[in-house]
Order: sequence, then structure tokens, then C-alpha cells
Amino acid sequence: MKGYVFHGPGRSAWQDVPDPDVQDPTDAVVRVDTVTICGTDLHILKGDVPEVRPGTVLGHEAVGEVVEIGPDVRGLQPGERVLVSCVSACGRCRFCREGMYGQCLGGGGWVLGRHIDGTQAEYVRVPFADLSLHPLPASVTNEEAVLLADIFPTGYEVGVLNGQVAPGDTVAVVGAGPVGLAVIATARLFAPERVVAVDVAPARLEIARKLGADVVCDAREAPEQLVADLTGELGVDVAVEAVGLPETFEVCARMARPGGRIAVVGVHGRPATLHLEELWDRNVTVTTGLVDTRCTPTLLKMAATGRLPTSQLITHLFPLERMEEAYEVFAHPAETGAIKVVLGGPHREVVPVQTT
Amino acid sequence: MKGYVFHGPGRSAWQDVPDPDVQDPTDAVVRVDTVTICGTDLHILKGDVPEVRPGTVLGHEAVGEVVEIGPDVRGLQPGERVLVSCVSACGRCRFCREGMYGQCLGGGGWVLGRHIDGTQAEYVRVPFADLSLHPLPASVTNEEAVLLADIFPTGYEVGVLNGQVAPGDTVAVVGAGPVGLAVIATARLFAPERVVAVDVAPARLEIARKLGADVVCDAREAPEQLVADLTGELGVDVAVEAVGLPETFEVCARMARPGGRIAVVGVHGRPATLHLEELWDRNVTVTTGLVDTRCTPTLLKMAATGRLPTSQLITHLFPLERMEEAYEVFAHPAETGAIKVVLGGPHREVVPVQTT
Repeated sequence: MKGYVFHGPGRSAWQDVPDPDVQDPTDAVVRVDTVTICGTDLHILKGDVPEVRPGTVLGHEAVGEVVEIGPDVRGLQPGERVLVSCVSACGRCRFCREGMYGQCLGGGGWVLGRHIDGTQAEYVRVPFADLSLHPLPASVTNEEAVLLADIFPTGYEVGVLNGQVAPGDTVAVVGAGPVGLAVIATARLFAPERVVAVDVAPARLEIARKLGADVVCDAREAPEQLVADLTGELGVDVAVEAVGLPETFEVCARMARPGGRIAVVGVHGRPATLHLEELWDRNVTVTTGLVDTRCTPTLLKMAATGRLPTSQLITHLFPLERMEEAYEVFAHPAETGAIKVVLGGPHREVVPVQTT
Repeated sequence: MKGYVFHGPGRSAWQDVPDPDVQDPTDAVVRVDTVTICGTDLHILKGDVPEVRPGTVLGHEAVGEVVEIGPDVRGLQPGERVLVSCVSACGRCRFCREGMYGQCLGGGGWVLGRHIDGTQAEYVRVPFADLSLHPLPASVTNEEAVLLADIFPTGYEVGVLNGQVAPGDTVAVVGAGPVGLAVIATARLFAPERVVAVDVAPARLEIARKLGADVVCDAREAPEQLVADLTGELGVDVAVEAVGLPETFEVCARMARPGGRIAVVGVHGRPATLHLEELWDRNVTVTTGLVDTRCTPTLLKMAATGRLPTSQLITHLFPLERMEEAYEVFAHPAETGAIKVVLGGPHREVVPVQTT
């Protein structure tokens, strides 16, 4: 089959790779019909995720059809249409038992496209299939569903739930990339007073508005002062960091009111400064997290009834074999306007960009 | 009357000051019978708390008798024996209504010995007396009660409750000074599997053991490795920072398990490094806080039935007029063994040091 293989920093190719098969009794093999590219994949290509070995097929988000199951898989059958979640889960370890699947100690967690071959291929082997695949309701399209593999659960669990967004809150979301936009869309479920989106890209702020941001702010134009003005100088109830830079973390820390929450969603490669000399007596809470995907069934249910605008984030559709071109488009959002780039099955026609 | 006056960094004196009186209708004046010195007072003397103006009487912890009340005080009478809490509270602002009295927006919060004259004097004016004073049950001695003015609520609320100590947890407390010891004593209320006390002073670690630490560790002897060994390499459920230095914060961050909590209790004067490149995907929670004293009635009730060993922290007793000597003893714990230095009313005899 074909797959998109990481060959070390700066080198990758869509190429022939061996077909996957069932290796462990709890595995399933899924035919990949729809797949997407994550900002994390770009980090891997840059060499920022050193545990990914050259030769690994990338990708941790897909929708497809089960084609083979191991003898210990109980809840799935070949032919079923499933979501491949970015997090696999043994279901037995201490952390899985607490619903903290992202921290699985039994060989799960974020392994696809990191420790084992991933989803950017024609087929993928998925470990612990019963807990790592989600059968899809017919009313959810592949394009809607594939954004529930990672970014929507991440925005919801690590941003909105960790940040404890509550009715009446002022929520600032710093970074309106795919995950930041998922935070904005799911923060609205808790009836905040207002959501403030902060980014440097006007196009992203425009999409943020469509997804529910009440106020948008150019990151270079003193967002701290804006939120101070909006909140009677107190600061926001929740600041969500969705970029992954020390500077944006520090903006969030300056934005939070006494008693406020700072939810770190971004993937960080460098330490930040925590101004404890200002924060020690302000009752703030800082959270970090890898998505657990414990909320994926809930989000799927909501998507099935049209209550999650997931596919609004898709700006580009490609056939699967144009993976390299899709990566180029996704890696240069300033030029291409890309938010989420989705690749269809091998039979899909080339589809033009449609953002609105 | 006499009071202990801050005259700018490095300068202070027990001297004549004007008698306080009721200024606002919600004020009370309390005759100070028992008072203590806080680590924060030492910070003020060093000039680390710049908002304290020269001429201010220090102190924010006391037990005494109400001698005068303003016309709007409803729940207190002259003659009542009361605890003077370190936090005053208007009771009306947004944060007071949420029980976050330490962040009072209406003129309360930590004001005694900071923005207004404090408790290290023969008398003290207490604003918002109904919410800032606690009538004392007869079964609680002055010495037991005065430690409930600040350090026990601080250790309990900012350390144990913010850290969400739960049954079966491994809890590391970095810093076995007065507040760290209060964390240890109150963490035990939640049936942790073990409490690990970390400090540089053997004498403090010995007291930590008496108050309920199961394991003690010299801070210079790799406490991170110790807790890794104790927890199967996972790390502690809760790490409480009770020193106030960037280094001890970073020790706590290294100690926490995936999904762990880091509760910052220390008073910090400098920023710390937050290693988001290691923590972003570990589901950790960092909390800070000034005490709200919302739990003071509960702690008083427990002290009244002998369930809080507050007075075990007292190493030195002095008569009130020997304030300057008491400060000297408290400021040099390595030489004096001081944990908490308590000063009695003007009629008290000189009392020798008794730690065991």
C-alpha cells in the first residue's frame, strides 16, 4: 500500500510501505477513507518530536472501514465505519480506569504516527481497537467525523473542560488555529458571556467569529488591555493558550482575573516564565493536558444531531494520493488560508477549496 | 498604647502609637491578648512588600477581646473573645460572595499590618468586624486559636484543598516551615497513603514527623528520586510548594505524576521557570492562592474538639512587650529552632521555650 513516511527532519514521502496486519489479538486493521493533517505532524517533520523514528508512517486522525479484527476484539466487526481516535487505550491501567486515556501506561496513549505507523496511509493497524475506534452514526459525514479524532476533543477537554468554562464567563482564546477554533466552538456550549479570540491572522479571526467568538483581537494590539477594558479591569475568567509559545502562555497569565483559570492546550517546545511574584496570591489555576478522548462519544452524539460545526474548519480537500501537496498547503497557512486540510479516499475526485 | 512599627526596610520598633478607635460603622476594636509573627512580616521588614508604608503597625494574626464595636456590627459584643483573622472581608463584593474573601474588592482581603495598622500592638482596629472576627469556643486556648488566624487556613485551603488531596494519595510537602507543617497536619485529614516532608532543617523534619509526615527527606538529597522510588516512577499525586523560591517550585513540578497537582503556598518574590516543554502533555494542574479563610469556622470547630494539633507548632512564648526579642528569635530559626513564636498578653509571665 501507500503511506506518508517520515524520513528524519525535513524529509518525508508518499511511498510504498508494507500492508499492516493484526499483530496483537486486540488489534484491528482499518481501511483509511478520510484523513487529516495535524499541526503536530508539522512539528514531527521539523524534528521537534524526537521519539518519532525515521520510517514511521505519520498521522493520528482518520475515518475508515474495519477490514480485519484480532480474536480479542469484541465490539467491532469488519465492514463497520469507524473513527480512528488519536489516542489508543489499553483500558486496564490505572490511568485508563480514571478516564485519563492520554496517559495510558499499558501501551496506549498517543501512539499512532508517533510510536507506531499512523493513519496517513491506505490502511492502518489500530491497537486496542475496542477502545481506540468509535463506530460512526450514519448521520455524521466522514469530513465531520475526522475532526473528532483529535482537535475537537482536544479543544473541548484540554481547553474548555480543564479551563472550567461556565455560564457568564469571559473566555479568551489565544491562537485561532484549528484547536483554538475548536475551543471557541465548544466553549459556547457553556453559555459564556463572551468569547474573545486572539490571533495574528485576520482570516483566522474571521472564522473565529463564525464559530462563536464575540470579540476578536489582533495579538499585536494589546489583548491584555482589551480584556481589562471588557471586564472592569479584573481580567478574564478563563484564558486558553492554543499556540504553544512561551509568549502566548505569558499573555494568558497576564489576562486571567484573580481566581481565573489558564488552560494550556498548545504543544510547547520551550519553557515559559511563570510570574509567581505576581500570581502567588491571585488564586489562579494553570492546567496542561494531552487529550484523553473520554468525551469523544459525547461529541460524536452532538455532531450526529448537528450541534457541532466541525466541518466548518475544513478549507481544503484532496485525494489521498496528493498527500505531499496537502502538507505543503497546510504548512503555509498565511499563503493558502489553510485551517484544516482533509484528504479523501483514493476514489474521491479532486475537490476545490471552499471556505465559506 | 504600644505597637510594633515598620519604619522602612531593616527598621522597626516596639513604641508608642495612637490608640485605635472605630472609624467605620462596621469596625471593631480588639484588645490584643495573644499574637504571633508571620514569615510575611519578615518579608515586610526586608522591604519585599513595597505596599507597606513606613509607620504601619505590623501583624495580621491575633486573639483578643472585643472592646468597642461600630453601630453596624451585628454579630459581636464588647467582652467577647475573638480570633482576628488575617483576612478581612466586606462580604458584599463579587469575590466575597463566592467565598474568595482573600481577593475582596470592597476594601478587605489581607489589609491588617499591610494597608492598615495590624495586630502586633495592644489594640487593633478590625474592619468589617462581623466577617473578620470569629468568636472563640471556650475549649480553644489562645495559643491554639492564634495559629488559626493565618497558617492553618493557609495550609489547608491553599495547600490541601487546592491540591485536592484525596484518600490514597502520595503528597509531597516541600518546605516544613510553619505553613508547610500546617499542610502536613491537615493533609492527614484526607487519608493520604503517605506524606513526604522535604526541608533542609533536620529539626523541622522531626516536627514534620510528629505532625504526620510518613517519610522525611533532606532537600539536598534528591527528593525527586525518593518520590519516584516510592511511587513506581510515576511521581506524587500532590506536590505542595511551601517555601517561596523558584527552585522549590521547580522541584515540585518535577515531582508530580501525570495528572498530578502542584499547589503553590509559598510567598514568591521572583518568577519561576515553567517547563511546558515537559509538562504540556502531562495533565498537571498548578494552583496559587492567598488564603480566603472560608474554612476558618470549620478549623475552629475541629480545634475545639482536639482534632487539630495547632499549638504543637509553637516553640517560643514571650510577653507582648518583648516583641523585638521575639522577632530576633523568629528571624533566626537555624540558631533558635523557632517554628512559631507566640506573644502573650501584657500580663503573661515570661515563658521558656518548650518544643517537646
